[in-house]
Amino acid sequence: MAKAQFSSPSVTAVALQDAYLAPRLETNHTSTIPASLKQSYDTGRIDAFRLNWKKGRPFMPHVFWDSDVAKVVEGMAYDLALHPGDKALEDKLEKIVALIVSAQQPDGYLNTHFTTVEPENRFKHLAWAHELYCAGHLIEAAVAHFKATGRRNFLDCLCRYADYIDSVFGRGRGKKRGYPGHEELELALMKLAAVTGERRYARLASYFVNERGRKPNYYVKEEGTSEDYLLGIQADKTVRERREATGHAVRMMYLACGMADVAVADDDAELLDRCRDIFDSVANRRMFLTGGVGSTHHGEAFEGDYRLVNLEAYTESCAAMGLVWFAQRMHNITGEVRYLDVLERALYNGALSGISLSGDRFFYMNPLDSNPDSRFATERKPWFGCSCCPTNYCRFLPQIGSFLWSENDGEVRLNIPAASEFRSGGRAIRVTGGYPYDGKVRIRILEPGDFRLTVRIPGWCDCVDADDTHLDESQLKDGLLAFVGPWKKGDEIRIDFAMPVETVRANAKVHDDAGKLALTRGPLVYAFESVENGDALGRLFVSGGQKFKLAKAKGLPAGTVSIVGEGVEAVRPGDALYSSEKPVVRRRKVVAVPFALWQNRGASEVAVWVKERV
Amino acid sequence: MAKAQFSSPSVTAVALQDAYLAPRLETNHTSTIPASLKQSYDTGRIDAFRLNWKKGRPFMPHVFWDSDVAKVVEGMAYDLALHPGDKALEDKLEKIVALIVSAQQPDGYLNTHFTTVEPENRFKHLAWAHELYCAGHLIEAAVAHFKATGRRNFLDCLCRYADYIDSVFGRGRGKKRGYPGHEELELALMKLAAVTGERRYARLASYFVNERGRKPNYYVKEEGTSEDYLLGIQADKTVRERREATGHAVRMMYLACGMADVAVADDDAELLDRCRDIFDSVANRRMFLTGGVGSTHHGEAFEGDYRLVNLEAYTESCAAMGLVWFAQRMHNITGEVRYLDVLERALYNGALSGISLSGDRFFYMNPLDSNPDSRFATERKPWFGCSCCPTNYCRFLPQIGSFLWSENDGEVRLNIPAASEFRSGGRAIRVTGGYPYDGKVRIRILEPGDFRLTVRIPGWCDCVDADDTHLDESQLKDGLLAFVGPWKKGDEIRIDFAMPVETVRANAKVHDDAGKLALTRGPLVYAFESVENGDALGRLFVSGGQKFKLAKAKGLPAGTVSIVGEGVEAVRPGDALYSSEKPVVRRRKVVAVPFALWQNRGASEVAVWVKERV
Repeated sequence: MAKAQFSSPSVTAVALQDAYLAPRLETNHTSTIPASLKQSYDTGRIDAFRLNWKKGRPFMPHVFWDSDVAKVVEGMAYDLALHPGDKALEDKLEKIVALIVSAQQPDGYLNTHFTTVEPENRFKHLAWAHELYCAGHLIEAAVAHFKATGRRNFLDCLCRYADYIDSVFGRGRGKKRGYPGHEELELALMKLAAVTGERRYARLASYFVNERGRKPNYYVKEEGTSEDYLLGIQADKTVRERREATGHAVRMMYLACGMADVAVADDDAELLDRCRDIFDSVANRRMFLTGGVGSTHHGEAFEGDYRLVNLEAYTESCAAMGLVWFAQRMHNITGEVRYLDVLERALYNGALSGISLSGDRFFYMNPLDSNPDSRFATERKPWFGCSCCPTNYCRFLPQIGSFLWSENDGEVRLNIPAASEFRSGGRAIRVTGGYPYDGKVRIRILEPGDFRLTVRIPGWCDCVDADDTHLDESQLKDGLLAFVGPWKKGDEIRIDFAMPVETVRANAKVHDDAGKLALTRGPLVYAFESVENGDALGRLFVSGGQKFKLAKAKGLPAGTVSIVGEGVEAVRPGDALYSSEKPVVRRRKVVAVPFALWQNRGASEVAVWVKERV
Repeated sequence: MAKAQFSSPSVTAVALQDAYLAPRLETNHTSTIPASLKQSYDTGRIDAFRLNWKKGRPFMPHVFWDSDVAKVVEGMAYDLALHPGDKALEDKLEKIVALIVSAQQPDGYLNTHFTTVEPENRFKHLAWAHELYCAGHLIEAAVAHFKATGRRNFLDCLCRYADYIDSVFGRGRGKKRGYPGHEELELALMKLAAVTGERRYARLASYFVNERGRKPNYYVKEEGTSEDYLLGIQADKTVRERREATGHAVRMMYLACGMADVAVADDDAELLDRCRDIFDSVANRRMFLTGGVGSTHHGEAFEGDYRLVNLEAYTESCAAMGLVWFAQRMHNITGEVRYLDVLERALYNGALSGISLSGDRFFYMNPLDSNPDSRFATERKPWFGCSCCPTNYCRFLPQIGSFLWSENDGEVRLNIPAASEFRSGGRAIRVTGGYPYDGKVRIRILEPGDFRLTVRIPGWCDCVDADDTHLDESQLKDGLLAFVGPWKKGDEIRIDFAMPVETVRANAKVHDDAGKLALTRGPLVYAFESVENGDALGRLFVSGGQKFKLAKAKGLPAGTVSIVGEGVEAVRPGDALYSSEKPVVRRRKVVAVPFALWQNRGASEVAVWVKERV
C-alpha cells in the first residue's frame, strides 16, 4: 500500500469538451479569476503583502487573507497552463508571485497578518488564527506555479517557509507540539514533498496528522482553548480514534485529504481505515443528495447521522469541493469506484451549484430548500468578507479534467465519461457524447498503444450496453468495464449508459425528507425552481409512478435537459391565517432543472425534495 | 372609553369544575407551587432576600431572581384564596413575604441583585438588567397577597418601592428618562393604582409606556446600548409608531398589556388603536395554530409575517400566557369577542402545553414539531436556570377561572363555557357540560336577579343550537348569544355548540404548512404523537376529506377525546441513504390527541401539521 493504485492526470493532460463542465473552465478564465483578482486588489488582500499596513489604517490584513490570494494565484497558474501564451495573465501572475516572495521574512516566515498586525503572536493562536492554513494554501499555489511555469522562485520561497515551520513544530526538543487549527497544510506539504522529492515535508505532514488531538491537548494546554471548541476543529480526539466526520466540514474534508495522503506515504493501513470510516460516515449518513456536506451553520459543521434538514443545510461550497478532493484520493489509493460515485455527485451538483453560470457570483451555502423561510443563501453574491468559496473556485474549476480520468503504468481509467481528450504518457483517448445529459458515449483511441482501459459504470446506472470487441468480460465486476489492448489509432468503443429519470427517496431516518421524493437523471440531481413551478414549492405534490418526459430547459445553456411531469398543487384560498376552508387541488405541469444551475434566471425559490403524491 | 366595558372576576369568583382546566389548579396547589417553592429555596432565590451574599460565595443573586420568587408568591396568594384555611400554605407565604419586606432599603428600593452584587449600578443598566421587571412582579405579588389576605404589609412595602421609583423616573427635572428593559412594571403599576386608588401609579405607568422608544433613545444615550438591541426590547420606536408585534415575544406581550391598561386609564383612543394593530399582527400573521408566539429562538422573538416554521418555533410558554393576558384586556376594554377566540386558543393549547399533567415538568419552548431534527424542547424539565416559565404557571393557573367569565353592571358574559360556577356581585351561575370535549352546555341560574347574560359563540363554531326562552334574538350578532332576565333561581339555558373535527389549513403564505393539514375540534388543537403513530411523523399522509371518529384517548386523563382516522405511510425500505427503490405505501390508523397533552406518556415525537393526502 506504499503506493496509490492510481494517480490523477495533470490539469493539462485533459481537455474538456462537454457542454456542462467545459464552459466553467472558460468562464473561470474570462470571469471568475479576473473578478476574484479585482476583488483581491480592491479589498487590499494583495497589497497586504507589501507589509506596510499600520495601526489605524484601513485594510488591516485579516488572518485568512493570504489564503484567498494564494488560491487565486493557484488558479491563475492552472489557468496559465491551460492557456499557454496568455502573456497578460502570466504578467499578472508573476507580479503577484514576486510580491508574495518579497514578503518573506529572513527566517522564512511568510504571513501578512502576523507580520504587520500582531507579530508578537506568531504561532500563538493556532486554534483559530488560520496561520498554518494560509501556509498550506501558499504551498499549493507555489507547487502549481512551478508546474505551470517551471520557475522555482515561488516554490523555493515556500520551501524556505516549510523548512522554517519544520524547525518550529514537531516532537523534537524545544519544538512546539502544535498543529493547524484549520487543516490544509498537511495535504499541501504532501504536494510539496512530491514535487521536490523532499521526504522531510511528508514527515512534517505526518507529524501534524498524527499529533492532532493527542492528550494533553495542545490547544487547551498552550493556548487556553475551551474543551468545547475542540470538536469543531477535529482536535477532540486523535485521527486514530476517529470513526466519523465531525466538526467544521471544510476542515474535516481537508484533514481527511491529508490523512489519506499520509496513509499512503507512511504505508499506514490503520490510518487508511480511518479515512474509509470518515468517508462512509459522510456518504452513508451525513451527506445531502447533492453531495453537499455540513448540515448546520453552527460552526459550519457536520451533525449527527441523518440530521439533514434541507432549509438549514449549510453545505458550504468549499466543503463540497473538499469532498471531491477527498473522494479523488480515496479512489486513487484504493481503486474502488464507489468513491467516484460520491466524487461525481458532489462535482456535478453541490460543488457547481455554488457558482453562477456567469462565473462571477457565488453561494457560500447551498441549501436544498430556498424559500421565504430561509435564513441564508437566497441569492449568489459577488464576494464575501470571508471569501474562501469564490477563490476556491479559481483553483477548483481548472482541476475538473483531472477528476475525470485516472491512470497508472498499465491502465487508463475513465472515471466520468464527459466529452474530453486525455493525453498522458503517450496515451491519447477522446471521449465524445452528450454526458451528463445523454448516456451514449463513444471512446476513440487517438494513439496506438497497449494498456488496459477501464470505464467506471456509474453507481446510478442500472443498465450498460457496450461494444464487446475489446471488452474483457471476465472483469465485469466492481462497477467497471475493462477493455484490453493492444490499441490501434482509431479504435472505437461505444457504450450506452441507460439514463432514465429516477425518483429518489431518502433513508427513512432522514426526517426532513420523509414523504418526499427528488428527481435525478444520470449524475444530475434535479430541483424544482419557482421559475417554472410557482412560489410555495411546499404545496406541490408529485407522483413518483408517472412517466416523466425530457425537454429543453428554458433560459439555461443549450443542451440543458429539464424533466417535465405532472403534479398537483393544493392551495387553501382566503386570507385567514388558519381556516377549515377546503384547499383547491389543481393539476399542474412541474418542471425540474439541474440543481447546480438553479438561480441563473433571476431570483427564485428552489426545492430539491417535494412531497410525494401517494 | 375611560372605562373598560368589562372586568374579569376575581380568582375566587369562579370555581372551575371541568375535566380539562380544573385539575390544573389542583396540581398547581399540590405540585407546581410546592415544586417551584422547593426549587426557589434550593437555588438560593428566596434566601437572596436575606441580603447576605458576599463576593466569592455561591448562589449569587441573578438579575431576574426576584421575579421568580415574586411569581411563586403571587401564585401562593391566589392559591390561598382558592384554598382558604390552608394554614401551612399561609405560613409559608407569610414567611417569604416577611423576608421580602425585610429586604427593603430605607429609601424604599427593593432588589436582591443590585443591593448585594452591584449596588453601584442601581438603575444604570435598565436595557438588560431586569431591575424594573422584578419590581413589577413584586408589585403584582403584593397586590395578590393583599387581595387574598387583606394584610397590607407587602402592599405597603411595594407602594414605598413604587413611590421611590416614581421619585427616580419621569419627565421632571433631575429625573431619569428611562423605562423598563423588560416590560412588566407598566401593567403592575396599573394594578397597584387600581387596588390603592392612587392615580400617581397610573401616571407613572403611562409615563413608562409613552416614553418608550423616544428620540434621543435613552438606552443609546445613557447606557451605551447598541441600536441593534433596541428592536428586541421594543425600544426602537414609540408605542404610537408601532403597528405590529416585534422583538422578544414575552416583553412584547407584557408591553401590550401595559399599553392597553394605560389606554383605558388615559382615555387614549390612539394608544388603543395601536394595541389593536399589535393584536391583529399577532392573530392574523404571526401566531402559530396553537396560539404560540415568538417564532425564533434568536432573541426569543417575533419574526416577519407568516414566518412560522414549526420545527424552529420558540413559542415560549410565558409568551402564550402573555397573549392570554393581552387578549383578556382587549376583550374587556372593547367587548369584542374575537379577542376571546385568541385567548381561548392560547389558553387551551400553547399555554397549557408548557406544563405536564403532573404539574412539575415544564417546556420553555413549545414547538409544533418535535422529532430527531429538533434542536430544543424535546422533553419537559423540572426547572431552568432562567426559570420564568415554571414560576409563571404558579400564578397563571389560578387565574384561569377569571378568563372564563367577564362582567359589568348590567351583564355577565360567559367567555368560555367550561364547567364552572360564577359568583360575583350577588349573581350566581353554574355551567355544566363536557367542554372542551363536548359542545353541549347547560347554564343554570343559582340566584334570582335581573341582568343580561351573554354567551360567546366561539369563532370555531359554525352551528349553535340554543333554548329560546330567554334568548334575545334581536341581539344575535357579533359572535354572541344574549339572554335576558329577570332570572329565577333554577332557570336553565341549554346550548349546543356543534363540535365536529375540523381539518385546518394555513394561509398559503405560511411556507412550512404548505400541503399540510392540522386537526382541531372545538377549542383544541390536536397533534399526532409518536405514541400512536410511530416515529417519523413526516411520512404520514392524511386525507382531509375522510370522516374522522372520536375515541377515548389512551393513557390520558379520563374524558380525554382522541381523533381517529386513516392515513397512509410511505416508507422506502433499505439502508441506503438515497435510492430509487419504490416506497412501500401502507394504510394505517392515525390518532391525534390534544396538543397541550402531548408527552405525558413518556418521551415522544409530535407533529401538529401532517402532509395532506391529495
